[in-house]
Amino acid sequence: MTKKFKVGILGATGMVGQRFIQLLEDHPQFEITALAASDRSQGKSFEEACTWRLAGEMPAFVKSMTVEAPQPPLHCDLIFSSLPGDIARESEGAFAHAGFPVISNSSAFRMDSDVPLLIPEVNPEHIALLAVQRKNYAGQQGYVVTNPNCSTIMLALALAPLQAKFGVSSVVATTMQALSGAGYPGVASLAINDNVLPFIDGEEEKIEQETLKILGRLHDDTIDKAAMNVSAQCNRVNVSDGHMAAVRVKLVKAATIDEVREALASFIGLPQERRFHSAPERPIIMREELDRPQPRLDRDAGKGMSVTIGRLQTDNVLDYRFVALSHNTIRGAAGAAILNAELLVATGTLT
Amino acid sequence: MTKKFKVGILGATGMVGQRFIQLLEDHPQFEITALAASDRSQGKSFEEACTWRLAGEMPAFVKSMTVEAPQPPLHCDLIFSSLPGDIARESEGAFAHAGFPVISNSSAFRMDSDVPLLIPEVNPEHIALLAVQRKNYAGQQGYVVTNPNCSTIMLALALAPLQAKFGVSSVVATTMQALSGAGYPGVASLAINDNVLPFIDGEEEKIEQETLKILGRLHDDTIDKAAMNVSAQCNRVNVSDGHMAAVRVKLVKAATIDEVREALASFIGLPQERRFHSAPERPIIMREELDRPQPRLDRDAGKGMSVTIGRLQTDNVLDYRFVALSHNTIRGAAGAAILNAELLVATGTLT
Amino acid sequence: MTKKFKVGILGATGMVGQRFIQLLEDHPQFEITALAASDRSQGKSFEEACTWRLAGEMPAFVKSMTVEAPQPPLHCDLIFSSLPGDIARESEGAFAHAGFPVISNSSAFRMDSDVPLLIPEVNPEHIALLAVQRKNYAGQQGYVVTNPNCSTIMLALALAPLQAKFGVSSVVATTMQALSGAGYPGVASLAINDNVLPFIDGEEEKIEQETLKILGRLHDDTIDKAAMNVSAQCNRVNVSDGHMAAVRVKLVKAATIDEVREALASFIGLPQERRFHSAPERPIIMREELDRPQPRLDRDAGKGMSVTIGRLQTDNVLDYRFVALSHNTIRGAAGAAILNAELLVATGTLT
Amino acid sequence: MTKKFKVGILGATGMVGQRFIQLLEDHPQFEITALAASDRSQGKSFEEACTWRLAGEMPAFVKSMTVEAPQPPLHCDLIFSSLPGDIARESEGAFAHAGFPVISNSSAFRMDSDVPLLIPEVNPEHIALLAVQRKNYAGQQGYVVTNPNCSTIMLALALAPLQAKFGVSSVVATTMQALSGAGYPGVASLAINDNVLPFIDGEEEKIEQETLKILGRLHDDTIDKAAMNVSAQCNRVNVSDGHMAAVRVKLVKAATIDEVREALASFIGLPQERRFHSAPERPIIMREELDRPQPRLDRDAGKGMSVTIGRLQTDNVLDYRFVALSHNTIRGAAGAAILNAELLVATGTLT
Repeated sequence: MTKKFKVGILGATGMVGQRFIQLLEDHPQFEITALAASDRSQGKSFEEACTWRLAGEMPAFVKSMTVEAPQPPLHCDLIFSSLPGDIARESEGAFAHAGFPVISNSSAFRMDSDVPLLIPEVNPEHIALLAVQRKNYAGQQGYVVTNPNCSTIMLALALAPLQAKFGVSSVVATTMQALSGAGYPGVASLAINDNVLPFIDGEEEKIEQETLKILGRLHDDTIDKAAMNVSAQCNRVNVSDGHMAAVRVKLVKAATIDEVREALASFIGLPQERRFHSAPERPIIMREELDRPQPRLDRDAGKGMSVTIGRLQTDNVLDYRFVALSHNTIRGAAGAAILNAELLVATGTLT
Repeated sequence: MTKKFKVGILGATGMVGQRFIQLLEDHPQFEITALAASDRSQGKSFEEACTWRLAGEMPAFVKSMTVEAPQPPLHCDLIFSSLPGDIARESEGAFAHAGFPVISNSSAFRMDSDVPLLIPEVNPEHIALLAVQRKNYAGQQGYVVTNPNCSTIMLALALAPLQAKFGVSSVVATTMQALSGAGYPGVASLAINDNVLPFIDGEEEKIEQETLKILGRLHDDTIDKAAMNVSAQCNRVNVSDGHMAAVRVKLVKAATIDEVREALASFIGLPQERRFHSAPERPIIMREELDRPQPRLDRDAGKGMSVTIGRLQTDNVLDYRFVALSHNTIRGAAGAAILNAELLVATGTLT
Repeated sequence: MTKKFKVGILGATGMVGQRFIQLLEDHPQFEITALAASDRSQGKSFEEACTWRLAGEMPAFVKSMTVEAPQPPLHCDLIFSSLPGDIARESEGAFAHAGFPVISNSSAFRMDSDVPLLIPEVNPEHIALLAVQRKNYAGQQGYVVTNPNCSTIMLALALAPLQAKFGVSSVVATTMQALSGAGYPGVASLAINDNVLPFIDGEEEKIEQETLKILGRLHDDTIDKAAMNVSAQCNRVNVSDGHMAAVRVKLVKAATIDEVREALASFIGLPQERRFHSAPERPIIMREELDRPQPRLDRDAGKGMSVTIGRLQTDNVLDYRFVALSHNTIRGAAGAAILNAELLVATGTLT
Repeated sequence: MTKKFKVGILGATGMVGQRFIQLLEDHPQFEITALAASDRSQGKSFEEACTWRLAGEMPAFVKSMTVEAPQPPLHCDLIFSSLPGDIARESEGAFAHAGFPVISNSSAFRMDSDVPLLIPEVNPEHIALLAVQRKNYAGQQGYVVTNPNCSTIMLALALAPLQAKFGVSSVVATTMQALSGAGYPGVASLAINDNVLPFIDGEEEKIEQETLKILGRLHDDTIDKAAMNVSAQCNRVNVSDGHMAAVRVKLVKAATIDEVREALASFIGLPQERRFHSAPERPIIMREELDRPQPRLDRDAGKGMSVTIGRLQTDNVLDYRFVALSHNTIRGAAGAAILNAELLVATGTLT
């Protein structure tokens, strides 16, 4: 057995921070050695600082760890970050400058031209941007790698096999997103009780922009954005976990519905081929029942790392339509970052 | 003051039946004189037969009325029907044959080529189909007039001014529909708790087909369906009342966003011009807040008869997008039928 | 028609503040002339400062009013206050000192021995404490009158007729309280989704203590607390409005269940006798259905000012049990304070 | 490894039936060899007959099994039953008569004087009633053993250690019960959305009666019911799984709150001593946080077999109060029956 990488978590007390801790509890490659948060919890033990909001108990190994400030140095080899957007850029940048690999779930750096925006099944070759990043930041010892927005990951995973086999020219996605995506306390109960909210700040833009970068092609050290139109309308629904999207796609090449289904169902990528620890057997699970996917029944598919797709049909306006669902704080956040870290290890980037 | 028309309600004990009773309690043109239901409640007093499920008390005037079978004759001048689809065709047909005007909220006759599918603000001229209906059914003394499906009404009202001013070539609608649309008991609480259901039986087809008929043009005694493509994906969310739809539209003629907004905001029709009793001041209410419409806040706009539209934006795939909301058992069902009856009176069809 | 009293609202932007505005919109005795709030909204127009969270639109007459600081003077004859507990004591005290009658929904002064804790149907004679208050605060021109905690009002109203006719020796109340009781944003949606919270800070103590004062007897300028034991366990449930309590009572004198029912059903007080504007016809509405009261169906009974009681049964441990429900921000807060103000007018205290 | 007992499930397609299948999937002592249901599913494969409603997939081993009628014989050694009350008595009686041990979750036989109503931690000695049952039913080869109602189990487990150490003279319990307790489809979503229902048919009586039998003492082949008064008020709340109860108790002997806490926290019984497969380490888990237990956070404690108790306080009317919570379809139903079966094996009753 090899030595584990020491990991520091930025934003450890938040919803995604807690998922990092839960998912890393028995991870064979990483062990948590530092916890940091931006709030008033610094200096307290994690047990004091954090109200555990996930099912089950706070893992024992983090209880007595002291919450530190999200500033270098921390006692660790790499950083997982889920800091709030407003402070992420400075804090993550400081860690990268100080020599830490930063695997970030924050939006701060995602659209920087020299920062990989990675989904290991979709665009692992975008890691090559790190060479550009190193050039751009003279003296920077570490680096920043990001994963997409929680809804974008689900959409990009669903589009990747279609893009690869048929080309995608247009995408229309309407999301119904879970409460945990807004963090804690997040959405007020009075706002969502017997209600739907048709607005999530910045979400439509993130989906429309990030998707093009992820599905873009690396060319001469830059990403040529994918040549497709993406339209996103985002809604918050009264669901705890599990983002859902009603999606229509227009393909470049004609394809039958069976070919589309097969492309989705058979999709695998590097994490499956190389058997990454956090990789689900199937990144996309196709369901044929008329009423699936559903957040409560399908969000934990593949331990929260699979996207479930159902209701595949031909469409009157675009070519095909379907409904996709994935767990927004696992595949859509903490699990996405961990899979990115496993990719960095597997490709020898992180040693 | 003129004599009121005597009204019989078919399906009186159901969710829409109760709305009919609530909305007709103080109506200046109609008074309820007969109640009928298809279930085991026949022969009982309405108070015994019906568990009142709307806010407030069961109106006193219906309590002692006897629930009858949904078969002619009933002591009334016209029929409002919200019978379940499986028995509506036979029962409503029998009433029409027996000489009763039938204003139906059921889906049974909607797509018949000689049956008007009416929204008084949108296509009042389709009443002319009644002449065809009379020819087709030799000896029929009455007739059948229908209103659209609850989601379709909202969509067609939103599209009507755009179709009129700019032409609409494509529509992509994704609905988030309320529980009351499924009647009572309808959706099981265990099915929708912490969940969204991506399937409503027959709903997508109804929206896609009915919209074309409503927005179609009457020509030589037939309706030329509107020349547009309509795509609908329908979801059930954990909301009591108020259907919501995320809509994208492609226009035939170019229009600025201000022209689109103005077309929607200024839209009125015959019910407003002629001041029908149940007509809202504005069939469409435009909201400029970032997070409106919302079911809980906007479903009762215009006493449940207005469609609220917000989040109007340009779209990357079609031309414009917006979110629409209306009360599914008022404007989407009982109120729609009553407005149709008011149209029949106003046009001299019902005398 | 007499001149209206000019009213200032403290805490105007909060949930209870909005109810004050809604309930006073067309009040024959009071008109709002000043709005104040403790938050960062001071100096803005109310329309800018306040996100309206009640059904329907923000009343037009408040939109352009400027939000002021909750400090005297304000342009008004009396004050309605729903300030947060931590600042209420200082602010309300300052207004009272400056000569304003303060009708407060806050908890700050409720248990002061010289402050009336009033429910007009229950203990209007406690107004006499104002004489004591005047003595205690030399130079104070105004005064403070309070209404009970939202759950306590409901409980005390239910107990009052039993106490009057039979005496009550013990009360066991278990509440299921609505989200609006916690204000906005209040309870996080992630905390209450698919959940019940068995703790509301300070609530059990308030019910146990305030009830004894309200039902106590005025004697020589002091309140002799009621000689009964009160036990309260308080829970938060996923309901927007409407507090519910499962109650058991032990009586001093034996009474049949019919006598108990009759005592509750026939209960009226000064507001009914003198026909106060906000008084419901019946402070207590008895329901005989097996499954009532329910928050959604009964919270608006008596325009939110009636307590609905059902499921009256004999009990194995105490004597009788029942379930009570009332609207927590109307009868339990803003409506309670307004009824108190009407009492002050009716008794000539406020002139 | 010993041979496993062959098990038949009556009511296999229901919510509790599905829990039986889930909990028995890898059980070391029992294997499912027959599935029966009372509904129209007979003759179909289980996969066809049953819509799986628990998280995760339907276990593969039951998919191709044929659903049979709930009549003997079935290919099995013993029966687990969760049939609806109306048919349970006849069906379970027939199986017992035909020689099958019937471990029933139904209410049909619970209060029969010769039927053990068992909680293995509380009253395992009540198995002795089977001797009486054998005498009463001449020629009966099998027998019927029952577990209590889902709320009663939780209450009786909480009371058992207090009864044993201090005696309990009075109990006042107010429940807030989950939707799954009503089966599927059970409670209509429109009935519980933004609501609480203060009535569950038969539930209050079951709690008040069953508790006395469970905590009663076996004496000369009969159960002397416990000499305590039990009062139950039952409410349905909008929670998927996890019954909660606010409980007050009056003790016979004085006890300090620390003694009460210790009695609850240290409680174990035969299942813990003999390490039954389904026994939780602790039948009662005490929590000291102010806001626990909560259904979502605590229902799965001890794999759904532990009762979580919190908010232990002195009470103004009885002596102590606390809040208890347990998983109503695991410890409260299927898990309870399986633990009973393990008790039968451990005591040599089932061989």
